[in-house]
Amino acid sequence: MDMIHTVQPKFLTNTPIAIEIYSAEQLSPHCHPHSIEFLYCLLGSASFIVDHERSMINAGELVTIEHQNIHCLESAGDNLFLSVHIDLKKTKFDWETLQYYYFSCATRYCLPHQKRAMEQIIDLMLSAAYVYSSQPSEAASTDWRRICDALMELLVNHFLWFAVEDLTSEENRKFRERLIDILTYTQQHYKDKITIKQLAQMEYINENYLSQFLKRTSFHSFTLMLNYVRCFEAQKLLLNTDKSIQEISDDCGFSSKKYFHKHFKYYWNTTPLQLRKWYEAYISQHPTKACDKTMESGTYLKEYITRLHIARSFGRIGI
Amino acid sequence: MDMIHTVQPKFLTNTPIAIEIYSAEQLSPHCHPHSIEFLYCLLGSASFIVDHERSMINAGELVTIEHQNIHCLESAGDNLFLSVHIDLKKTKFDWETLQYYYFSCATRYCLPHQKRAMEQIIDLMLSAAYVYSSQPSEAASTDWRRICDALMELLVNHFLWFAVEDLTSEENRKFRERLIDILTYTQQHYKDKITIKQLAQMEYINENYLSQFLKRTSFHSFTLMLNYVRCFEAQKLLLNTDKSIQEISDDCGFSSKKYFHKHFKYYWNTTPLQLRKWYEAYISQHPTKACDKTMESGTYLKEYITRLHIARSFGRIGI
Repeated sequence: MDMIHTVQPKFLTNTPIAIEIYSAEQLSPHCHPHSIEFLYCLLGSASFIVDHERSMINAGELVTIEHQNIHCLESAGDNLFLSVHIDLKKTKFDWETLQYYYFSCATRYCLPHQKRAMEQIIDLMLSAAYVYSSQPSEAASTDWRRICDALMELLVNHFLWFAVEDLTSEENRKFRERLIDILTYTQQHYKDKITIKQLAQMEYINENYLSQFLKRTSFHSFTLMLNYVRCFEAQKLLLNTDKSIQEISDDCGFSSKKYFHKHFKYYWNTTPLQLRKWYEAYISQHPTKACDKTMESGTYLKEYITRLHIARSFGRIGI
Repeated sequence: MDMIHTVQPKFLTNTPIAIEIYSAEQLSPHCHPHSIEFLYCLLGSASFIVDHERSMINAGELVTIEHQNIHCLESAGDNLFLSVHIDLKKTKFDWETLQYYYFSCATRYCLPHQKRAMEQIIDLMLSAAYVYSSQPSEAASTDWRRICDALMELLVNHFLWFAVEDLTSEENRKFRERLIDILTYTQQHYKDKITIKQLAQMEYINENYLSQFLKRTSFHSFTLMLNYVRCFEAQKLLLNTDKSIQEISDDCGFSSKKYFHKHFKYYWNTTPLQLRKWYEAYISQHPTKACDKTMESGTYLKEYITRLHIARSFGRIGI
């Protein structure tokens, strides 16, 4: 039983990029296998859920939705979204590594040192969308590939999901590599019993040091990190299989159903069974209602880009 | 006899800014008293003369024309210019000081460290022009004043006409203040006999040091600087009075007609009399032929700004 739709983006011929502009009243819960989505709100707003997080997206805001994230969207009024999908198996980065990265790229969580990179992502998306919707023939497939790689480079260099101040310093490079190693290992072995001792040995570092080190990340502790990964995997089984809660708990490496409940509640703020039921009801009541506007958005984008240009140059001088 | 037209820009009500978009086949020699002009070429190209300099301006290029500069323009084909005038008597800077500044703000002479400021000037001009030509009511007079001040600040901070690498350092601040003092003094006393000794005493510095110091500027030597100022004043008398060459030579502080000729020839590449005759003939054959397009340029500017946005964001990634 697959509750969650798998949506394959319509990639431009011979490219790893898909560009779409749409207005949406509802998007039913779905995910995009091995694709990341850059979602930018051009007009209006919407509330959306990505995994355990509910939030709003307003005009001028960007969020990225990762390749395993289950997400849906609802809106009361007029809106317009620009969505860019990238096939993570076809970028300049190695999919075997990339698939374990966690990103945090959203306007509302953007830190001061990330602002410039965020602006560059939005500029590239708008430029790509304008060229695609008004003169699709103007960009060659090598150009589309370059746009993909530039977007991914900005994402990997500036928006990894760590609490790191400045990713360019040498200390942070090590910090970042270590965290990626640990996250990758955890995602590959979440079904097993993993201890902080094992990870410390793997990284040739002191156990206490590792513990302190993980406290500096968004996970706050080793236990929370490990169990986040397990809950994340559990969500997929909850929504796409008929397995019992006990089976899922065992499959995901929880030592008991009680711990599964506890950790799931901590992140998802609901129990596993409630989540499954909630989605069953939600999906039946919220079919996708969206309208593709890609090919009619050239004029709108031109107006939008002009306004953005003016807002930025006037903004710099306090108008 | 005034050969050179004095053109008063049409300043927006209660503001020190005038914005105009026009295509021009010919602009007869003219100048704008106490106004600086920022001239940006949107489309096509033109050849133009500003004082002793003849050059081309092409699409995407900017030049500024200073308040005493006599200038004219010719073009063979279709073109479109965006012109922003600022009344130098009404900016946040003191006219008593500002009137003696020399600027060098032109795309083709732009140094790497000036590139960002140049881009900001162009962005502000385009934004101001779009707002003015499409929604003139949108900007209040305080906003226009802020745009003026921002343009002047960029100009004064980044485009003074010195060979200075980085204007923000402390050494250069002193260098710059000293050069402004010397230039101001020279412009105020060019009719008199001025020696490098006098200037050195005025600035409390060693004469040799001052000489070395002036070599680092665009003037290359004290004599060249002083005589440039004299030639500049002579040009005004040549073109706007009936005075004889001897009278002008005396009025401008040249020790003899011979020296007047020599120095004039060095900068203007012609003799004083030839210049006067050349302008007489030129003006009779080149009346202004231009067409104001300010109020019909909204759509064009929108397209232009969008293209600029795309060119910049794609340019950054090598497309």
